Amino acid sequence: MSTATRSTDPTPAHEHLDPIARSGAHDGPALTTALRAHLDGPFGSVRDRCRALDPATFGPPSSPLPTDEHRARVTAQLAALARESYAASGFPEHQGGTARYGEAVAAFEMLGHTDLSLFVKAGVQWGLFGGAVSLLGTSRHDHLLPRIASGELQGCFAMTETGHGSDVQSLLTTATFDPSTDEIVVHSPEPAARKDYIGNAARDGRLAAVFAQLVVDGESRGVHCVLVPIRHDDGTPSEGVTIEDCGPKLGLGGVDNGRLTFDHVRVPSTNLLGRYGDIRDDGTYSSPIDNPGRRFFTMLGTLVRGRISVAGGAGAAARSALAITTTYAGSRRQFAAPGTGVETTVLDYRTYQRRLLPRIATAYALQLAQHELVTAMDDVLAGRATSEQDQRKLETRAAGIKVLTTRHATDTIQECRELCGGAGYLWVNRLAALKADTDIFTTFEGDNTVLLQLVAKSLLAEYQSTFGDLDTAGIVRFGARLVGGTVIERSSARGIIQRLVDAAPGREEDVVFGIRGTQLRLLREREQHLVEGLARRLRRATAPGADAFAVFNATQDHLVDTAMAHVERVVAETFAASVESCTDDEARTVLARVCDLYVLSTIERHKAWYLEHDRLSPARAKALTALVNEVCAELRAHAQTLVDAFGIPAGLLTTEMSGTA
Amino acid sequence: MSTATRSTDPTPAHEHLDPIARSGAHDGPALTTALRAHLDGPFGSVRDRCRALDPATFGPPSSPLPTDEHRARVTAQLAALARESYAASGFPEHQGGTARYGEAVAAFEMLGHTDLSLFVKAGVQWGLFGGAVSLLGTSRHDHLLPRIASGELQGCFAMTETGHGSDVQSLLTTATFDPSTDEIVVHSPEPAARKDYIGNAARDGRLAAVFAQLVVDGESRGVHCVLVPIRHDDGTPSEGVTIEDCGPKLGLGGVDNGRLTFDHVRVPSTNLLGRYGDIRDDGTYSSPIDNPGRRFFTMLGTLVRGRISVAGGAGAAARSALAITTTYAGSRRQFAAPGTGVETTVLDYRTYQRRLLPRIATAYALQLAQHELVTAMDDVLAGRATSEQDQRKLETRAAGIKVLTTRHATDTIQECRELCGGAGYLWVNRLAALKADTDIFTTFEGDNTVLLQLVAKSLLAEYQSTFGDLDTAGIVRFGARLVGGTVIERSSARGIIQRLVDAAPGREEDVVFGIRGTQLRLLREREQHLVEGLARRLRRATAPGADAFAVFNATQDHLVDTAMAHVERVVAETFAASVESCTDDEARTVLARVCDLYVLSTIERHKAWYLEHDRLSPARAKALTALVNEVCAELRAHAQTLVDAFGIPAGLLTTEMSGTA
Repeated sequence: MSTATRSTDPTPAHEHLDPIARSGAHDGPALTTALRAHLDGPFGSVRDRCRALDPATFGPPSSPLPTDEHRARVTAQLAALARESYAASGFPEHQGGTARYGEAVAAFEMLGHTDLSLFVKAGVQWGLFGGAVSLLGTSRHDHLLPRIASGELQGCFAMTETGHGSDVQSLLTTATFDPSTDEIVVHSPEPAARKDYIGNAARDGRLAAVFAQLVVDGESRGVHCVLVPIRHDDGTPSEGVTIEDCGPKLGLGGVDNGRLTFDHVRVPSTNLLGRYGDIRDDGTYSSPIDNPGRRFFTMLGTLVRGRISVAGGAGAAARSALAITTTYAGSRRQFAAPGTGVETTVLDYRTYQRRLLPRIATAYALQLAQHELVTAMDDVLAGRATSEQDQRKLETRAAGIKVLTTRHATDTIQECRELCGGAGYLWVNRLAALKADTDIFTTFEGDNTVLLQLVAKSLLAEYQSTFGDLDTAGIVRFGARLVGGTVIERSSARGIIQRLVDAAPGREEDVVFGIRGTQLRLLREREQHLVEGLARRLRRATAPGADAFAVFNATQDHLVDTAMAHVERVVAETFAASVESCTDDEARTVLARVCDLYVLSTIERHKAWYLEHDRLSPARAKALTALVNEVCAELRAHAQTLVDAFGIPAGLLTTEMSGTA
Repeated sequence: MSTATRSTDPTPAHEHLDPIARSGAHDGPALTTALRAHLDGPFGSVRDRCRALDPATFGPPSSPLPTDEHRARVTAQLAALARESYAASGFPEHQGGTARYGEAVAAFEMLGHTDLSLFVKAGVQWGLFGGAVSLLGTSRHDHLLPRIASGELQGCFAMTETGHGSDVQSLLTTATFDPSTDEIVVHSPEPAARKDYIGNAARDGRLAAVFAQLVVDGESRGVHCVLVPIRHDDGTPSEGVTIEDCGPKLGLGGVDNGRLTFDHVRVPSTNLLGRYGDIRDDGTYSSPIDNPGRRFFTMLGTLVRGRISVAGGAGAAARSALAITTTYAGSRRQFAAPGTGVETTVLDYRTYQRRLLPRIATAYALQLAQHELVTAMDDVLAGRATSEQDQRKLETRAAGIKVLTTRHATDTIQECRELCGGAGYLWVNRLAALKADTDIFTTFEGDNTVLLQLVAKSLLAEYQSTFGDLDTAGIVRFGARLVGGTVIERSSARGIIQRLVDAAPGREEDVVFGIRGTQLRLLREREQHLVEGLARRLRRATAPGADAFAVFNATQDHLVDTAMAHVERVVAETFAASVESCTDDEARTVLARVCDLYVLSTIERHKAWYLEHDRLSPARAKALTALVNEVCAELRAHAQTLVDAFGIPAGLLTTEMSGTA
């Protein structure tokens, strides 16, 4: 059987794809409802409450507004949300909240369908600023949270500096304890230390959570967070604080990004958010975590909710773009088919299907992966998953999903703009703002390339803890363990996935793309091979005389590929498990085909790798492309149903586009 | 030797890349000057005149302006350009011009470094509107040209309708000759006939070149162009003309795009731009071209300058983004290398090099291809190349280069924004406007996907005229002829390229990526294979009982790949020939390596195809990636020199970005 992968049959006739029972022209509302319920996941009722938000109040403005007006509108929107106790679910009960963290993130995700400036502004106020006070502060800060939740106290999350964005550990701002007055002196020692791009800083923020190098008794204790008032009640800057406006941006015009420079600003030492490092009454430093590196990463780790929320908003924006474009493409006609005189609906063209449908499939995959991620986050924040390993896994997963979803959003909205032609360029048709507003999502809350390196390093750490110093033979022998160990962590899904993979033909047999277990096996094999190769290459960095930077730098592209392979595999397995769990027969059949498209188009994108590594024969690689085309054509009939199931309120999707006028 | 392609050595040690004599840290101004002279091409003096334009007057506004203000500014800029006789070179002498068409396009390209709203506004006024009058009109319209060139008469190019953009042949607007009054009645019979996205329509245009179905004596004669006054001198709409404003767009805020609807608007029959179809004094229709289809394509073909100009502006915008980003990346530092405490310049990271340097190489390739294209256009417009074949080749080339360059611009500016992180999102750092303004370039002057289909069809026509009904064996036998026939047409380059390819080892031998002839052979083989396969598949469409649309639609992705393979090969050959022609030794050495990077990264992008078709062994495919990494690392040292050689005036590249503050 070892030559079976050399089958020369390029046709997909034996791919074992079960036909979808009926074509999409007859999709009924029951299918849309069932798909929507599945996509809505565990927090459907919260989503429905958000769907009821008044589009006139919370939607994007009907025309682009001057900066001041847009900022004022968003500030008013935030206040309106606060009046509905929108933020309470994100905080624990002893801080005045309801501790329903998953609901909070799901509700926040729904803001991704409103004006994205509101999404970001709310994220800064409640997620980042409120999150820092809630999760890094101590009981002495709890009294602030109700005022933060109500919007009475508006704040900033002042982490990034002009000179340091990705490398937070090297921030230059200092926070020096002065025992003589029991104060902390916050200072920007050089221009590069200026806090930059800070949301809420240019207009509304009163208090800033400032990340700075804490110095106690002459000793630097690493990055900590200190609350610093930046404005008086009348809006003028506080003593020693210089506030600049970042000015116009590509998008997010309603967010008042600004810059903060501190000139020996004194605050009470109790303003230190001291949960992971505090100053005792005797003026000495204490921390529950001795190792400064571990302390730093623990502090940052608590802020994982921001990344998860950005992924949620990016996914929502991409779904808006896909819904707008699919609706347009189903009615827009251009060029008569030869001999008929009847113009062809653009969605019937293969090039159009190829550009649109795999992105709809990806939107499904990422939405379902987001549920899994939010549920895991809920478990950690609510104290149901408490180990350091739970926290680390959550961080790795959040980083990976953030990268995949924000990349998907940027690429998809761009493609949608182009698929809608000139109409897509007009502001009134929404895609322009979606594109401009979300463009920065690949950068903020962690630059995507840097995040992929974090993901890869965590995979390597897991790999090393599994294999230690095993040689290559040992690694091969224990390969199965690795695959078992890196399967998605949630036990229910792991069982389902393992059964699917076990039921698939082995690697020695001909690849049949229609078998789910085979699809997943291909993704697993790629990830495993990349991790192993990376571990081997990096081992060289520890050899005597090796230039560690050169070795590390040379593997950067490998590292990034490895991380992507990991995230893509995790998302695919989550999707596959989710399909199995769908209780509506008709919806499950359609979901299964959408899952096929996601997984197969992912494998197709990495076709060169599979060919280079002899995991696919040239004939099977060609058959894969033919099959992706076929699945696109089949799902074309269901395209409108698939985007209707996103459940985006019609009032937030209003455009002037239609097929002809 | 037949197994030689199965070499298992993945290292690039024997790739025969001549080392660049000295590292870029020592690049002197002489190298920059020599590279710039080479890149400036045949119209360097025009470029230098444009470089002297005052950035304060012609550059982008220092902050985003309200729509009215921005439009007024651009209108004033256009008038200032007109006072410098900017437009004269684009018109023949008998129309008051100087007939230096190549210079006109080169000068226009340089506007791509100013406010891109000005670039588009000038393109509408002089290129599209002026071009239509100049090239579709007759001697009775010549008197208009001086007033158009001076900007005294501002006009619109009213082709696209709400219902038809790509399919111009199916426009719905009618122009019906009324012999009783010797008038033409221009009418929009339904909402889909509304002229849409028309530049200069919302504010400034007085006269519109309206494309409409000409009806004479009850018979439709196909699309023709008629001049229709749309505004009185006081700016109010003409009788029967409804003007709407397209409103805000993603970018190009200074361009007044609008919509025109005609309600039985009567104009003298002499307003017909009648060069290719006119109304005789006796009221009958006459045309020098009998076949209506051929007439239509001949008329459209004269407008090829618009596509060439868009490619030029897109290339310029991408170069601006690359220059801004490379300068930033050479000074920005982030993360200390292990054990050194010294932060690494971000351009030293492999991931960064990988994202940036192949795009710089592509910018070089496209700039040089643009020279070739503009020179060919100059020959056609000046009457030095007069055959229909010359014209068709120019159109195909223009379509292909327009696609490649606008795709490059959109992708590159996006990548540059991300490479500059948060700083790239701020308006003051230029990338936001570059991105928003050029985004529509992939759509206007021909949707890129539709243009690729035109390119592919022209390749097929050439193929069929060469091979007729040859069977597969016949095609294989005459394969060499096809390759010879599709080589770039300019004879000087053809000779050089053929010598390079002939000197390379044959297909049976091991692929050595460092040999230019081998690089080019790989690109040729891909194109040839794709064209042949496409021809075979489309032949099925002519079989009895075949569903022609289904066959055609099923090959769409193949068609698009074929066209891209063609354009990429043509651009690579142009680049290779240009390197050979460079007379400065040092510049030639660097250019050769940039050419390597363009060609090798192009082949790498299609690695899956080469593996699927057994043109590269897995081992050689891996070696290719290693080699691209190596070339990136080598060119990193010259990156600043490479972008300095773009010769973009410093005043047009002002940003607030630097490494640390």
